[in-house]
Amino acid sequence: MPLPEPTLVHRRAVTIEWGDCDPAGIVFYPRYFAMFDASTAFLFQAALGMPKIAWTKKFGILGIPMVDTRAKFSIPSAYGDAVVIESRVTAFRRSAFDVEHRLLKADGALGVEGFETRVWTVRDPETGRIRSAPIPEEVVKAFA
Amino acid sequence: MPLPEPTLVHRRAVTIEWGDCDPAGIVFYPRYFAMFDASTAFLFQAALGMPKIAWTKKFGILGIPMVDTRAKFSIPSAYGDAVVIESRVTAFRRSAFDVEHRLLKADGALGVEGFETRVWTVRDPETGRIRSAPIPEEVVKAFA
Amino acid sequence: MPLPEPTLVHRRAVTIEWGDCDPAGIVFYPRYFAMFDASTAFLFQAALGMPKIAWTKKFGILGIPMVDTRAKFSIPSAYGDAVVIESRVTAFRRSAFDVEHRLLKADGALGVEGFETRVWTVRDPETGRIRSAPIPEEVVKAFA
Amino acid sequence: MPLPEPTLVHRRAVTIEWGDCDPAGIVFYPRYFAMFDASTAFLFQAALGMPKIAWTKKFGILGIPMVDTRAKFSIPSAYGDAVVIESRVTAFRRSAFDVEHRLLKADGALGVEGFETRVWTVRDPETGRIRSAPIPEEVVKAFA
Repeated sequence: MPLPEPTLVHRRAVTIEWGDCDPAGIVFYPRYFAMFDASTAFLFQAALGMPKIAWTKKFGILGIPMVDTRAKFSIPSAYGDAVVIESRVTAFRRSAFDVEHRLLKADGALGVEGFETRVWTVRDPETGRIRSAPIPEEVVKAFA
Repeated sequence: MPLPEPTLVHRRAVTIEWGDCDPAGIVFYPRYFAMFDASTAFLFQAALGMPKIAWTKKFGILGIPMVDTRAKFSIPSAYGDAVVIESRVTAFRRSAFDVEHRLLKADGALGVEGFETRVWTVRDPETGRIRSAPIPEEVVKAFA
Repeated sequence: MPLPEPTLVHRRAVTIEWGDCDPAGIVFYPRYFAMFDASTAFLFQAALGMPKIAWTKKFGILGIPMVDTRAKFSIPSAYGDAVVIESRVTAFRRSAFDVEHRLLKADGALGVEGFETRVWTVRDPETGRIRSAPIPEEVVKAFA
Repeated sequence: MPLPEPTLVHRRAVTIEWGDCDPAGIVFYPRYFAMFDASTAFLFQAALGMPKIAWTKKFGILGIPMVDTRAKFSIPSAYGDAVVIESRVTAFRRSAFDVEHRLLKADGALGVEGFETRVWTVRDPETGRIRSAPIPEEVVKAFA
């Protein structure tokens, strides 16, 4: 029986800080990636009911390092802007998964889209080497 | 007659700082985007023979904002690592262009690849609105 | 008649993010200054009832740039820690003022203290030069 | 016989990056602390002849965490500015020491001064607790 599709969406409000912005007065784009990284952590916390530090321990993994990430910038945000970041897993594969983020402006317009591919990563108990591992069903189901 | 292909490659040495790294001991990936942003500025400075602040003024543009960027992470870098970032424009279009960055480890192995699409951007003198503009031939030729 | 003492205290909850931390697993200390800078903005917003972008416009100033800042670090914070930052103006002088921040750990222990001296700064309408200006009574009273 | 006074001065050139600056067009001041942190690492590397990762291992310490830091801002720096950061230890005590940084503008004017107090820190081999330890004479002499 196939595992359920991930449907969980996590939303969080973010206020753009002065230090997020560059001399053009808008968010320095690397900062969006830091915001998205934190959003992925919050998404997993919402799904698994515990903070990242706890669920990485529970599942015996090193983490979920990024292998590929992309962002498309449609509307800039400036200091003081109140935005919402919506995040969800779009696909679970054997040991990799995709996350999408949508940063929405106050009027609901799409400001930035972010895409991530991350890998469920363990330290091999025998070789000591870092490698990917199958994502547990329990994790996949928690996002349905 | 078609414009020449961009062939200029800019290389710069970067030493990974403590503050670039995260609790896993490796570069926090948003920092790579900041490094690549600086590398694009250095690449244009090398091509145009003057710093960004001067050539944006010379060509009467607001800047070259990012519309789409991506990075693929192959080998992590850690505090103290000496790496090289190689950057080049891979394509000039009418008002947009692509930049590629390759972060090379000390042994020459490819650590991170970065991809950028940026737009030659002006403030319309009549409407005051921000819009794209054709990239001057002089700019394209400077990268050949 | 002397102006009232500033008594307003602003508190905000902050969760330490992965990207705030260094390879020692604790907050990279420059990040505390960024948190304190945001806290000062929130403190003024609480006092003046509008975001910084609005009150700097209302009072016709360029901003409140930092001239001197200091932090003392007592207990480190790590990824996932829930802390509270308490901020207050400790003294208003003619055109300068002092802000203190106290970062409190979940158990109430003092983790970091921050100290700032900032200046009420305007662009001189005649000379065009940037200079300090007297802090309006209305501002001082808003913190009482 | 008293140990020699520290006299070593380390200088490094830094070009202010776009991403270092804020909407006022000047360096966002927490970035200066990150620059100074890197400068302290370079200063110790110059004195001890090896990178931090090597000398912390050689002397069996966890690191040199900051306990108190301060900066005074005299002249702002903007995107593209070429500055020099001069760093030196001003005092070694039993297990703590002070570092001073001077960020000099292209014309030699003093832009920012930074002050640090750091502690030579070890993990107690018996109790496993983190504590200060005497700074080895070999280290102190390396700065003379």
